[in-house]
Amino acid sequence: MASLRSWYSIPRGSHFSLANIPFGIISTATSTSPRVAVAIGDHALDLEAFAANNGFSGLSTIQPHQAVFSQPSLNAFAALGRPIHSVVRKYIQGVFAEDTPFPDVLKTNSTLQKQVLLPLKEVQAHLPFKIGDYTDFFAGMNHAYNCGVIFRGPQNALQPNYKHLPVGYHGRASSVVPSGTPIRRPNGQILLNPSAEKKVPTFSPCKKLDIELELGAFVCGSNEQGVPIPIEKAEENLFGVVLMNDWSARDIQAWEYVPLGPFNAKNFGTTISTWVVLADALEPFKARSLENDNEVLPYLREKDDKTVYDIDLQVDVKTSSGSTTTISNVNARNLLWSFPQMLAHHTITGCPFQPGDLLGSGTISGNSSAEYGSFIEQSENGKTPITLEGGEKRTFLEDGDEITIRGVCGTDEEALVGFGECVGRIEPALTLKFA
Amino acid sequence: MASLRSWYSIPRGSHFSLANIPFGIISTATSTSPRVAVAIGDHALDLEAFAANNGFSGLSTIQPHQAVFSQPSLNAFAALGRPIHSVVRKYIQGVFAEDTPFPDVLKTNSTLQKQVLLPLKEVQAHLPFKIGDYTDFFAGMNHAYNCGVIFRGPQNALQPNYKHLPVGYHGRASSVVPSGTPIRRPNGQILLNPSAEKKVPTFSPCKKLDIELELGAFVCGSNEQGVPIPIEKAEENLFGVVLMNDWSARDIQAWEYVPLGPFNAKNFGTTISTWVVLADALEPFKARSLENDNEVLPYLREKDDKTVYDIDLQVDVKTSSGSTTTISNVNARNLLWSFPQMLAHHTITGCPFQPGDLLGSGTISGNSSAEYGSFIEQSENGKTPITLEGGEKRTFLEDGDEITIRGVCGTDEEALVGFGECVGRIEPALTLKFA
Repeated sequence: MASLRSWYSIPRGSHFSLANIPFGIISTATSTSPRVAVAIGDHALDLEAFAANNGFSGLSTIQPHQAVFSQPSLNAFAALGRPIHSVVRKYIQGVFAEDTPFPDVLKTNSTLQKQVLLPLKEVQAHLPFKIGDYTDFFAGMNHAYNCGVIFRGPQNALQPNYKHLPVGYHGRASSVVPSGTPIRRPNGQILLNPSAEKKVPTFSPCKKLDIELELGAFVCGSNEQGVPIPIEKAEENLFGVVLMNDWSARDIQAWEYVPLGPFNAKNFGTTISTWVVLADALEPFKARSLENDNEVLPYLREKDDKTVYDIDLQVDVKTSSGSTTTISNVNARNLLWSFPQMLAHHTITGCPFQPGDLLGSGTISGNSSAEYGSFIEQSENGKTPITLEGGEKRTFLEDGDEITIRGVCGTDEEALVGFGECVGRIEPALTLKFA
Repeated sequence: MASLRSWYSIPRGSHFSLANIPFGIISTATSTSPRVAVAIGDHALDLEAFAANNGFSGLSTIQPHQAVFSQPSLNAFAALGRPIHSVVRKYIQGVFAEDTPFPDVLKTNSTLQKQVLLPLKEVQAHLPFKIGDYTDFFAGMNHAYNCGVIFRGPQNALQPNYKHLPVGYHGRASSVVPSGTPIRRPNGQILLNPSAEKKVPTFSPCKKLDIELELGAFVCGSNEQGVPIPIEKAEENLFGVVLMNDWSARDIQAWEYVPLGPFNAKNFGTTISTWVVLADALEPFKARSLENDNEVLPYLREKDDKTVYDIDLQVDVKTSSGSTTTISNVNARNLLWSFPQMLAHHTITGCPFQPGDLLGSGTISGNSSAEYGSFIEQSENGKTPITLEGGEKRTFLEDGDEITIRGVCGTDEEALVGFGECVGRIEPALTLKFA
């Protein structure tokens, strides 16, 4: 492979170093059709325009498939499979490498550079996939434990099934939005006095609006209905990873979720970062998951002992007064189950997958409050407010609060593999009138 | 409107009388592109071919939109809205009426009849919609009560939230299949001894494979994320209704479902009937739901007192020995919540909908065992086998069992509004080997 130093100016500390090459869907004010791009430094490389201008002249493998770069989603590109994603990424790394074997493609062609390299600040990044189905897991064991303590006490914090299978539920695909989309505080039924004998709900804006710091993984493979994806094939069916904020209405959830699980508490919005970091780019950052002290069934056993990713995650809150506070720093190793295990479990019954399906990890929390990935943990379900910069207090989110999640692999400022940002700001609830 | 007697031969007792005109997606051996059709008697009227041959010459409203009939799903037609569905249905009724005002269109054109009227037995009916999201509710109160009695006893059979909101969960859209698709018995984790102190699951084919007799409603409207569909507008966002069998793995469910609800127990297959009966066709069969003795919140209050449908439902089991037994006859009025209420509740948080989204009613059961819509109720969770014709016993489904659900409105054999059949046969579980 060519070196990872570039002839192109990539700012030090950029999430989108030459070691990364994440994929996304972009449009601009003057070219409004959404299409495929990769992020590199402060720019997006428009792959539709790049392909149309012979950019892939050095990569015959992709030439029959170049129409995928004109699609408004990554589904068709993803469906080409991991070996193709791999060669396309490596080829683009080669094109940008200082010692590029293809100087004519872009390095010495400043006209084409102007045409295909678009400043990220002038680009609109869209939802990267048309998501067929979205599933959210609960694989962050510290989060599961912390919530269990809040609701059931430390003796029964984890349910009996927790270490045997990746617990999950089907989410609402239509509610997944790209970073930057405002999130409206939902209205719904909440129980103001949960300990009352007679349980009568009130209609109200959510009073316990929360975040969930998660990773999302996009699937690139598919399986026939009735035929599982075995654990040893699971990884080749994973395209890449994004940051995710699974906004949650804790009070709506508490009332609605028995016996069929969270529903309206979760379907008003889930934000993801817009640049999908390929599984290949994350390979050097594989790490051990949390230890499962229970022997799992054979269909969930992985050969490798490094199955999750060493990603430093950070959550910032910016309030409408303008102050910004980092409320959480936690590593993504804090998962009991890996994405391959989630996919193997999800399909063990024969559930069919398609490219573009999305798996959420569940909230990622560490062992101390500075590492908790949700307000319900940070404030002990509202009992203990946290103090922000400037002195404001929070138990849950207030209107106007903006949450930014960041994630990055590595420490070499010239070779970071980062996810950019996953941002959402809370808008006030609608005032609804009834006849 | 023209009379509902037809110049065309529609067999007495057909589900697809002139009063019905259900929509579906078909292909044939010689014309393999899936496209839109309606069912009429023993035939499908191929609307793509009908439109291409000037069949809609008497209906200017639809002419700018005729491309929707060449689509491989009903999504585009549905998105045109209820007023358009209504005029298209009425126009087709007019074309087939004995006293048709458009005799030249089809009645006197035997060449076109041969081209566009295809015997149903030569037609393959496909999934009618590309389903974006699928939600399954739990609105059959008798079923909810019966299951509650099995698991918690009669005192706490219904959860405190049950009469306040339509309880539901997000299902797996990719697992919805058209009538006739075989269903493979899933493998998964089950707890052989649930009362043991130490809970250790076994990997096994499901031993408690069940049906759920349901209705499904397809949505034709959409809402912006964050903006609810009010109850008084919910009905105009509903396209039509199908029969549904939400196959369920009760033993997998019992182990996995705490605390996030049913997951793998439900995502291996859900069968729907292929001809969608328009909401307009069901209008004359509106009926009162089960009584809710609780005052519901204003956002769920309907003006009409007739909000569900009077549909006679029947479930037959055919075993591999060839015997067929009707195990359930129940009316679809046995719901506590209507589809408009489900949609109003589902969107009250701002959850966005698209045409083609599917709502399941939940299992429909009556008050006696001959009216139960699942085996878990019929056999009291396996305790009391039921006896089939010929003496075979069943607690849950065995391999080779074929389930057929039928549903019909009305008793006039020349004017039935029926749903056809919703059929699925159980194939043996895969034998999986692990390294």
